[in-house]
Amino acid sequence: MNETNSQYRYDILQKRWVIIASERGRRPQDFAVPKEEVEMSFCPFCPGHEDKTPFEITAIREPGTRPNGPGWKVRVVPNKFPALRVEGSPERDAEGIYDRMNGIGAHEVVIETPDHQSKLALRSIEEITQMLRIYRERLADLMRDSRLKYILIFKNSGMAAGATLSHPHSQIIATTVTPMIVSLELNACRGHHQLRERCLICDIIKQELADRERIISADERFVAFCPYASRFPFEAFIAPRYHQHDFALATEHDLRGLATILRDVLSRLKRALDDPPFNFILHSAPNARVEPRRSHYWDTIKFDFHWHIELLPRITRVAGFEWGTGFYINPTPPEEAAKFLRKV
Amino acid sequence: MNETNSQYRYDILQKRWVIIASERGRRPQDFAVPKEEVEMSFCPFCPGHEDKTPFEITAIREPGTRPNGPGWKVRVVPNKFPALRVEGSPERDAEGIYDRMNGIGAHEVVIETPDHQSKLALRSIEEITQMLRIYRERLADLMRDSRLKYILIFKNSGMAAGATLSHPHSQIIATTVTPMIVSLELNACRGHHQLRERCLICDIIKQELADRERIISADERFVAFCPYASRFPFEAFIAPRYHQHDFALATEHDLRGLATILRDVLSRLKRALDDPPFNFILHSAPNARVEPRRSHYWDTIKFDFHWHIELLPRITRVAGFEWGTGFYINPTPPEEAAKFLRKV
Repeated sequence: MNETNSQYRYDILQKRWVIIASERGRRPQDFAVPKEEVEMSFCPFCPGHEDKTPFEITAIREPGTRPNGPGWKVRVVPNKFPALRVEGSPERDAEGIYDRMNGIGAHEVVIETPDHQSKLALRSIEEITQMLRIYRERLADLMRDSRLKYILIFKNSGMAAGATLSHPHSQIIATTVTPMIVSLELNACRGHHQLRERCLICDIIKQELADRERIISADERFVAFCPYASRFPFEAFIAPRYHQHDFALATEHDLRGLATILRDVLSRLKRALDDPPFNFILHSAPNARVEPRRSHYWDTIKFDFHWHIELLPRITRVAGFEWGTGFYINPTPPEEAAKFLRKV
Repeated sequence: MNETNSQYRYDILQKRWVIIASERGRRPQDFAVPKEEVEMSFCPFCPGHEDKTPFEITAIREPGTRPNGPGWKVRVVPNKFPALRVEGSPERDAEGIYDRMNGIGAHEVVIETPDHQSKLALRSIEEITQMLRIYRERLADLMRDSRLKYILIFKNSGMAAGATLSHPHSQIIATTVTPMIVSLELNACRGHHQLRERCLICDIIKQELADRERIISADERFVAFCPYASRFPFEAFIAPRYHQHDFALATEHDLRGLATILRDVLSRLKRALDDPPFNFILHSAPNARVEPRRSHYWDTIKFDFHWHIELLPRITRVAGFEWGTGFYINPTPPEEAAKFLRKV
């Protein structure tokens, strides 16, 4: 492994990048015992324990309080065990027929609230807006780095959804490659726009609003629906109704609107499905400032993407064969899921 | 929903087909309670209970025993709750900007052994060969149906890997679409062959055998290694060293060779990682007899694929964000995983 202790490696058969991040001190035989779902008695994310995390990157704070001490409302710190590191250049190398790149990027943690027990679905609109404001700030800041092609912002809520600490937090991973599903979405939008001069996601939203049968919730500015080809039961797609490609361009008014619909959908899921574990992923446009610049490719970016949130409740045990096939069988038609969520 | 009670739907944004299979009698609110990992007291797959499954499709039997009675060694039956149905034509329809198709296909269960407790890693080579012989027979038979583009053969072993019945079984799903990851692999192989007139997977195998550091096990006919860009710790790739695109062409000698290396890898995993849950997926070439035939596309199929088995131990809790990104972080370099497996 190189000095950053992690690498991007390209899967030439399935055409995707993977991060190989060697965890220090973890030996292969440690995998024999599955990680237990224990609640740690000590929480490094709670107020008063600010010295247990790396120095904070940004925070929303009470007036007069100091960085790395209590008094914060939302706090962003580097991940203590980062999969990627900021220093270095993203050099590419061959390894025979394979391709690899240094593990350059950023890996940050957004501590969403000082309250260890706080559920996102039960927070105030103002609290959720603060979290989204921090997302927007970090996204805009990381996009200034022309090495970074994509900034992933996501949340794993609940142990079954992959969270390893129970204090409410989200994660940010900024990479020198574009994740496969984002590339697929970008290419689909681009193809649609070249042919029709319309945004694919705007068209999807228009059809969903006309059909209504898959709508979970909608207001003047935002819409939430169960996608037509949902892979999982109760999967939700949340997006602004107006066209906007880059989440960093969201106004205060937009953030408040998103907070409102996000809380609405999460509280419907909470009531309908007994507070399920879930993941959400913000899909925003790739970084247009990336170097080397391919101008033809990036000139049209503002027409070729439309930011949205993919929300995935983790209520079915996903069989493993999906990993090997990219193929999904969903036992709940999205029309039924949406109808059920509209009613609760 | 149509009369087959299931549909293929196309995700126009992420460019993949999904099966929406409405489970009869399962209401959305049933999802509130996660399925328990209970061992059912009655096993419909055990000998003597043949009348509890649909009529058998094929079986390997003791001489003189009758279909749908005891005396079988391996038995194939239709899935009692199939995601797809055989009858009908795979008509395509638009639904506004969306695309859908009738849920035509096959969904079968391979009951691998009469012994409810039998572990694949502990079976005899002859028993494993019998299972593989049945795979080959079903694959060849289903490929005669020109409506079916792809035949997926896979095994979920252990509840955490998605198995819902503990009696050892595999599944076969034959579809009128090609699963996304198979398409990606096919296109990668095709591109490589057009440029170099060599098989990509043959090239990968040659490099792995020369490097040796990711090899788990190898003999004259087969090789097993941890892939260069492994998505999961201890992921394994098992393939014949000689070029063969279609598993249905495997000889008896090939099947015995595969049984030998499969058992070797599984018993290494069992010893190294305390008998982990796992999935394996057979990746064989798509059905070249499919209609309507695109001859340019299918003429080269025998050069453009190389069958293999993807084996995925389920030892890490996969965070959900992978579903939304197609992006993986693997904490165990494949070189370390392979070294550990070679030693046990």
